[in-house]
Amino acid sequence: MYINKLLMTPGPTNVPKRVLNKMNELVFHHRTKEFGRVFEEFNERLKFIFQTNNTVLTFPAAGTGGLEATIVNMFSKKDKILAVSVGVFGDRFIEIGKTFDLDIEVINIPWGKGVEIEEIKSKLREDHKALIVTHNETSTGAVNDIKKIGEFMKDKNQLYIVDAVSSLGGIEIQMDNWNIDVLISASQKALMSPPGLTFVGVNEKAWGFAESSNISKYYFDFKKAKKYMEKEIAQTPYTPAVSLILGTNESLKIIEEEGLYNVYKRHEKLATRFRDGVKKLGLDLFVDKKYYSNTITSIKLQNKADKLKDIMEDEFNIVIAGGQGILKDKIIRVGHMGCVSEEMINLTLDSMKKSLEKIY
Amino acid sequence: MYINKLLMTPGPTNVPKRVLNKMNELVFHHRTKEFGRVFEEFNERLKFIFQTNNTVLTFPAAGTGGLEATIVNMFSKKDKILAVSVGVFGDRFIEIGKTFDLDIEVINIPWGKGVEIEEIKSKLREDHKALIVTHNETSTGAVNDIKKIGEFMKDKNQLYIVDAVSSLGGIEIQMDNWNIDVLISASQKALMSPPGLTFVGVNEKAWGFAESSNISKYYFDFKKAKKYMEKEIAQTPYTPAVSLILGTNESLKIIEEEGLYNVYKRHEKLATRFRDGVKKLGLDLFVDKKYYSNTITSIKLQNKADKLKDIMEDEFNIVIAGGQGILKDKIIRVGHMGCVSEEMINLTLDSMKKSLEKIY
Repeated sequence: MYINKLLMTPGPTNVPKRVLNKMNELVFHHRTKEFGRVFEEFNERLKFIFQTNNTVLTFPAAGTGGLEATIVNMFSKKDKILAVSVGVFGDRFIEIGKTFDLDIEVINIPWGKGVEIEEIKSKLREDHKALIVTHNETSTGAVNDIKKIGEFMKDKNQLYIVDAVSSLGGIEIQMDNWNIDVLISASQKALMSPPGLTFVGVNEKAWGFAESSNISKYYFDFKKAKKYMEKEIAQTPYTPAVSLILGTNESLKIIEEEGLYNVYKRHEKLATRFRDGVKKLGLDLFVDKKYYSNTITSIKLQNKADKLKDIMEDEFNIVIAGGQGILKDKIIRVGHMGCVSEEMINLTLDSMKKSLEKIY
Repeated sequence: MYINKLLMTPGPTNVPKRVLNKMNELVFHHRTKEFGRVFEEFNERLKFIFQTNNTVLTFPAAGTGGLEATIVNMFSKKDKILAVSVGVFGDRFIEIGKTFDLDIEVINIPWGKGVEIEEIKSKLREDHKALIVTHNETSTGAVNDIKKIGEFMKDKNQLYIVDAVSSLGGIEIQMDNWNIDVLISASQKALMSPPGLTFVGVNEKAWGFAESSNISKYYFDFKKAKKYMEKEIAQTPYTPAVSLILGTNESLKIIEEEGLYNVYKRHEKLATRFRDGVKKLGLDLFVDKKYYSNTITSIKLQNKADKLKDIMEDEFNIVIAGGQGILKDKIIRVGHMGCVSEEMINLTLDSMKKSLEKIY
C-alpha cells in the first residue's frame, strides 16, 4: 500500500500539492511558443532566487551534474584550484575536479565545522584559478560563511564558486552582492520540487573562463545552453525536462508569494525551534553553534542513529536521514527545508521522543 | 489560458493521464526501501522493453546525455569508429564522438534514406572499435534495418551501438537477439513519459570496453551506476529523478498490459493509416517506402511546411514538427508514437486537410 510519508530529509523534500498538480497538466512540446514563454518566466524567477542579474542555466540532471558542468566549463586541464571540503559534498566536488585533471589544493575541515576566513586567506595563492566552497554541507549540516568569504574574493581574478544545492531558497544567498561567480543548485531541496533539474548561475567573469576552457564537454556545454536561452523564443539545446520546469516554476512562484525573506525567516524560526526541541530531548547537536544550518540539523546518536531512523520511518512514517561515510550510524540528519511548517517540526520532535523511548 | 494541445510531434509525446497521476503521488525519498523496490521493478521492465537480460542504466538527462554517456564510457581517445548518419541525430552522435577526440569515419546517407548493409560491409574495418547506427532518425523519419546489420555484427569484436531514442517501444527492437551491445533510449518518445530520463542498455562485451576506456567521466559513469544498482537495495549514485521514474514505470506497465507486440502492431497500423491518408491529400512522403518509420512520418511541403505547422497549432491545437537543418520549411514531421489512437490519426489528417485548404 502506498503511504504518504513525511519527508524530513535533507532532500528530496516534500513537494507541495500545487507543484504536483502543475506537473499533472499535460506536458507541452518544448519547441513551442508556450514553452518559450514559461521558460523565460522561469529563468527570470531563477535569477530572482539566485539574487543575480546574470544568466542561470538549467540542465536535466542531478545536482552532481551541475557540479561536473561547472568543472568542465570553467577550467582547463592542470588548472590549480583551491577547494574547501567540510564533508561528503565538498569531497565530491573535489573528486569531480580531479577526475577532469584539475590540480586541486584542499582545505579539509573537520566534519561538523565550517571553514574560517583566515584559513582561506592564508591558502589562496595568485596561481589558483578558483576557490570552491560548499554553502550548506548536506552530509553534516554545517554552513560556511559565504558572504564573508565573498567580501574577501571581491575584485580578485580568481573565480568564487559556491555549491548551494541544499541551501538555495532556504538560507540567504546573494549571488551578485556576495561576489559569487558561479552558483550551483538543484530542484529537490529547499526549492521543494521533484529531483531532476540542476541550475547554474554564471556571471560575466565566469563566462570569460568558459571562453578559454579546454576540457571536452557536450551535454553540459554552458555556451551552447546560453545561446539557446537567448533565441527569440527561449530554448534549450536538448530536450528540456518540461514537467519538472513547470513544477519548479510553480515552486518559485510559491516562494515569491510568501516573500523570499519571509521564507528565510521561516526557515530560521523552524530550525531554531527544532534545535531547541532536540536539546530538550537530551540529545547533542553534531555541529557547533557557529555553523548551524537553517535547512539541516544533524544529531549525535552513536550506534543508535540507524535504528532511530528505521523506527521513525516504519512506525511514524517520517523519513529522516542517517550519517554518510565516516558518520554512518553516528548521526541522524533531519531536513527542515522548503515546504515545512511548525506542525511538521512538532510532529517530528514528538515522534523522535517516542522512538527514543523505544530504543532506550 | 491553458489549452491541452494534441502532441503529434516526434517527442515529447502525449503522456497518458495514468502516468501523470502516478507522478502526482507524493515523491518519496530515494534512499528508502520503497524506492529500491520501485527501482528494481522499473529496471526489470526496462530490460523487457529492451528485450535484454543485460543491465539497463537510467540517468536523469535528455537522450543526448545518453549518447554522450555511451561515448565517454565505451571508448578511449583516438579510438577509430565507423558511424552512420542518416540525419540530424546521426550527425549529433558523431559530433559528440569528435568532441571527445574519437577518430570517426562517417557513412553519410542522403537524408530521407536508410543505410544499406552492403555499405557497412564495405566500410567496417578490423581497426574500427565500433559501429554506431541510429535506429529511427527523428529528423527525417527514416528507419535503418538494425536487425539485418546485427546479423552481420554477430560474433565481431567491434561494438554495435544503436540509438533507439525515437523507436524503443514503438518499433520492434531486440537488444540481445539482434546482437546489439549498447542500446540508448529516452523517456519522452514512444515510452510516453515526460522528458528527463535517458536509458542505456549495456551487455557483457560492452562492459569489457568500459573497463579499458580512458575518457574522463563522473556523472555518467556506467560502472558506478551499475555498482549502485546492484546494492542490496537498488540505488543510483546521485539523486534519481524519482517522479519521472514513477511515471515511466507506469508507462512501461501500460505497454505490458497492451502487450509489447500488440503495441508494435498498433504503431504499424496507425502509421500505415496515416501515410495512406497523407497520400490521399495529394502530398508526397519524404522517405522512400523501404525506410518507412512506424513512429514518424515526414511529408514534403516546400516553403509551406512552417506555415502548415503554425496553422495546425494555432487553429486546430495539434502540435506537429517542422524540418530541422537543411530540411527547414521543406518538410513537416508528424509523430505517431506512444499514446496514439486511430481517432488522433483521423483528427490529424482532417485538420491537415483543412489547414492545407487555408494555404492553397
